[in-house]
Amino acid sequence: MSTVTGHNFIGGRRSAAGTTTLESLDASTGQALPYRFYQATPEEVNDAANAADQAFVAFRQLSPERRAEFLDAVADEIDQLGDDFVAIVCAETALPAGRIQGERGRTSGQMRLFAKVLRRGDFLGARIDLALPDRKPLPRVDLRQYRIGVGAVAVFGASNFPLAFSTAGGDTAAAFAAGCPVVFKAHSGHMATADLVGCAIIRAAEKTGMPQGVFNMIFGAGVGEALVKHPAIQAVGFTGSLNGGNALSKMAAEREQPIPVFAEMSSINPVILLPQALAARGTQVASELAASVTMGAGQFCTNPGLVIGLRSPELTGFIEQLTQNMAAQAPQTLLNAGGLRSYAKGVEHLINHAGITHLAGHAQAGQQAQPQLFKADVSLLLNKDPLLQEEVFGPATIVIEVDDEAQLKAALLALRGQLTATLIGEPADLEQYQWLVPILEQKVGRILVNGYPTGVEVCDAMVHGGPYPATSDARGTSVGSLAIDRFLRPVCYQNYPDALLPPALQNSNPLGLQRLVNGEWSANAIA
Amino acid sequence: MSTVTGHNFIGGRRSAAGTTTLESLDASTGQALPYRFYQATPEEVNDAANAADQAFVAFRQLSPERRAEFLDAVADEIDQLGDDFVAIVCAETALPAGRIQGERGRTSGQMRLFAKVLRRGDFLGARIDLALPDRKPLPRVDLRQYRIGVGAVAVFGASNFPLAFSTAGGDTAAAFAAGCPVVFKAHSGHMATADLVGCAIIRAAEKTGMPQGVFNMIFGAGVGEALVKHPAIQAVGFTGSLNGGNALSKMAAEREQPIPVFAEMSSINPVILLPQALAARGTQVASELAASVTMGAGQFCTNPGLVIGLRSPELTGFIEQLTQNMAAQAPQTLLNAGGLRSYAKGVEHLINHAGITHLAGHAQAGQQAQPQLFKADVSLLLNKDPLLQEEVFGPATIVIEVDDEAQLKAALLALRGQLTATLIGEPADLEQYQWLVPILEQKVGRILVNGYPTGVEVCDAMVHGGPYPATSDARGTSVGSLAIDRFLRPVCYQNYPDALLPPALQNSNPLGLQRLVNGEWSANAIA
Repeated sequence: MSTVTGHNFIGGRRSAAGTTTLESLDASTGQALPYRFYQATPEEVNDAANAADQAFVAFRQLSPERRAEFLDAVADEIDQLGDDFVAIVCAETALPAGRIQGERGRTSGQMRLFAKVLRRGDFLGARIDLALPDRKPLPRVDLRQYRIGVGAVAVFGASNFPLAFSTAGGDTAAAFAAGCPVVFKAHSGHMATADLVGCAIIRAAEKTGMPQGVFNMIFGAGVGEALVKHPAIQAVGFTGSLNGGNALSKMAAEREQPIPVFAEMSSINPVILLPQALAARGTQVASELAASVTMGAGQFCTNPGLVIGLRSPELTGFIEQLTQNMAAQAPQTLLNAGGLRSYAKGVEHLINHAGITHLAGHAQAGQQAQPQLFKADVSLLLNKDPLLQEEVFGPATIVIEVDDEAQLKAALLALRGQLTATLIGEPADLEQYQWLVPILEQKVGRILVNGYPTGVEVCDAMVHGGPYPATSDARGTSVGSLAIDRFLRPVCYQNYPDALLPPALQNSNPLGLQRLVNGEWSANAIA
Repeated sequence: MSTVTGHNFIGGRRSAAGTTTLESLDASTGQALPYRFYQATPEEVNDAANAADQAFVAFRQLSPERRAEFLDAVADEIDQLGDDFVAIVCAETALPAGRIQGERGRTSGQMRLFAKVLRRGDFLGARIDLALPDRKPLPRVDLRQYRIGVGAVAVFGASNFPLAFSTAGGDTAAAFAAGCPVVFKAHSGHMATADLVGCAIIRAAEKTGMPQGVFNMIFGAGVGEALVKHPAIQAVGFTGSLNGGNALSKMAAEREQPIPVFAEMSSINPVILLPQALAARGTQVASELAASVTMGAGQFCTNPGLVIGLRSPELTGFIEQLTQNMAAQAPQTLLNAGGLRSYAKGVEHLINHAGITHLAGHAQAGQQAQPQLFKADVSLLLNKDPLLQEEVFGPATIVIEVDDEAQLKAALLALRGQLTATLIGEPADLEQYQWLVPILEQKVGRILVNGYPTGVEVCDAMVHGGPYPATSDARGTSVGSLAIDRFLRPVCYQNYPDALLPPALQNSNPLGLQRLVNGEWSANAIA
């Protein structure tokens, strides 16, 4: 394993020009770990952004196969991070080793998925309209389009996924695949982890001959602002709080050249309990739901924060069961002390709210988060009470009873944008409540049936996105292979000599792509 | 032909609730035409946005074939707008009848292209990852993704294309194809045209049984702000000035729920003259370029506003030739008096600038725009003088001589984002100057060889977009079938009963789509 030096990663070298240093804390004890991290100076931020910009010229012009080799090499390096690495991640995050081992596999698997996307080549979006010299009244000239990377991308990792949504996480993988070098802002909650993963990426870049500056990383508080405002940065990926995402979006919009921000922010992930399912398996659902709410101390973007059901004896029984289950949950250590403070504050606001009843959970005290269950009056949702719409990040959830279908519809329409919505229903429920689906489609990025939203599969079909405030741009996803689209833009070549065209667009189709030629899909060469 | 009533179009009815009325002017004489237009009241703006929102629910769920029928019907109605219609468009815009007839065909052709996109179905982006119940360590659940419309779209038409970029123009066609109802803000420069085209759309909507509110249109000064701020509006399409586009982007970013704005704004479309082409056919290029600069009175987004060549006797000869050609161009009537004022002011700024020489063109006077040719010192570009970077909308262009290849590179790197860049070169030039292309790829949306940017083909491969300030989002195009992507977002269904899935994702593949199934493209049904 590399040594954690805490130096910034700039253009293939390490740099510690500043005098401000930061500590990484043991999340369970609050004690400082034996590392120092050097806050990037303004010059280092500038150098990192420029290094990414300079790498862009060569990196984006590498063949998809060469970039795939890089991603595969990153995956291999990540897989080789061993038990000593896992121990450091666990120390920084208080997450259990099994979870970190799983996340390591998820992170390398994500890199390999994007390598597969690169080799498939459809991300290039090749389109060809051949010349029609005899067309009347005007001839058509030869036009060919494909997609290139947008430029250097700034990535802000998440607190809650120290591997899969961080240094070598989904945003970094998607940017690399698109041909975009990355400047990563290390999360203060797991800087030693970031340092070690950064070293793994650099080893892979060197082994596969990538341009220096393909990956850069800066440490420090407040260095993100200068990064987002740097003219070399052309897009931003972010996973975190609504306030944080909004602030970055504002900075990006106010630049001399505005740039897109893909921020994954706040979601309460409603779970809708349909009547026949409650009757058939309410006890089981109450048990599964308590497990989903408290899994990983509730620190998931897709944690189910709102449970909605139609008033009935079965719902009453379910709530009693869920109350017992939640009361039986053990307290858990959160990712960091800041998270615990936020959670305690969120829980306190809920407890003090006149329209909200506290059903289960010990008083918040000490260094761990107590799981909590609340019940809120539906009027809070209908009147768009902000407290009910905002994510309480931790092991808490709120149940709402609605009077009838009309009120259920009104309640769902009152929701803001979400990452997910879940329907728990028997087949007959799903038939009867099919009218819910169009409403949910307009509100969320992913609709689940008879599952729990806390598992987010990394695959082609996943959408981890959704209307604001779930994300800043509902047209993207930050998990799954479609995430590459956020960092690509189309370019068109008109009347261009074949030999000088990019390979994706040459007549002979050397990459063997499916291309849209004169309005028809074809993998053929052009005669 | 319908009668021009000047009433707003709201949810399938016409409405004139306000007392403020506007006139449409004859662009050649400045005299008022015999129509009155009723400025939309705040209530009418609200009603129009809500009508679009309500129509969205039904419209987006129509099959692609049903929406294609609607687009085809709009195309037929537009084709049937006859000579009396053309005469009104000509009166409002001072554009010649032949141009308007051509633009009518372009507008109906655009609708038919999107109908073809709908029938092809690839815009749906269907992706399926089948369940892997036996996968270790965790099973995979069935996941399916496709794309739906973002919601009601506000469209702001262009002054310079009263048909193809206006009421039934590219943004409207793309939004309809995506399943998004439209609220169109009529351009003050051609409100009678807008009224008649609006009636054509409504006829098509009625004939094909589209939901009321699929198309809405409001008249008036300042009504666009309330439209963009309306919570029902989910995206904005705009073609116009940099100031206008920036203002809309700011409003959209500051909403409680920010929404994307696709603004096509400002481009000076550099033309790069390579040495051997100048030697071989400088005279011809000088003639073609003068025609391109003055075509349609220079009122094209892709008008070549900057011509760059390497200092040489051939370039000197070319400039002399271009000077003669430009001096021989007749004055032309612009689209409206405001455009003429802006043009006169832009020309005056160039004439008064110390680093710019006036080469050809009569003093600006009277009711028509005088074509103008300038020469600027390259230092203005290198020092990023804003005057040189900003579009002067009208028949004017600026020539720049560079000393050598290094200075050519520096000049191109100093350019802001553009819609197009053009290379005029012999085959040997294009070989030798191949290093220019990666620079241009990062600056523009379309690179042309041996053509002129003023023709913008409507097809699958076109990109009419580019980095800021050419547009507000380089990842989109406002011409060609890829424009539909701006108004789509992905939705994922997890563990969903087959019969309740949208047809695009059902096992039997009833739409016959190419789908990405377990990472492979296939048009097969799933067993």
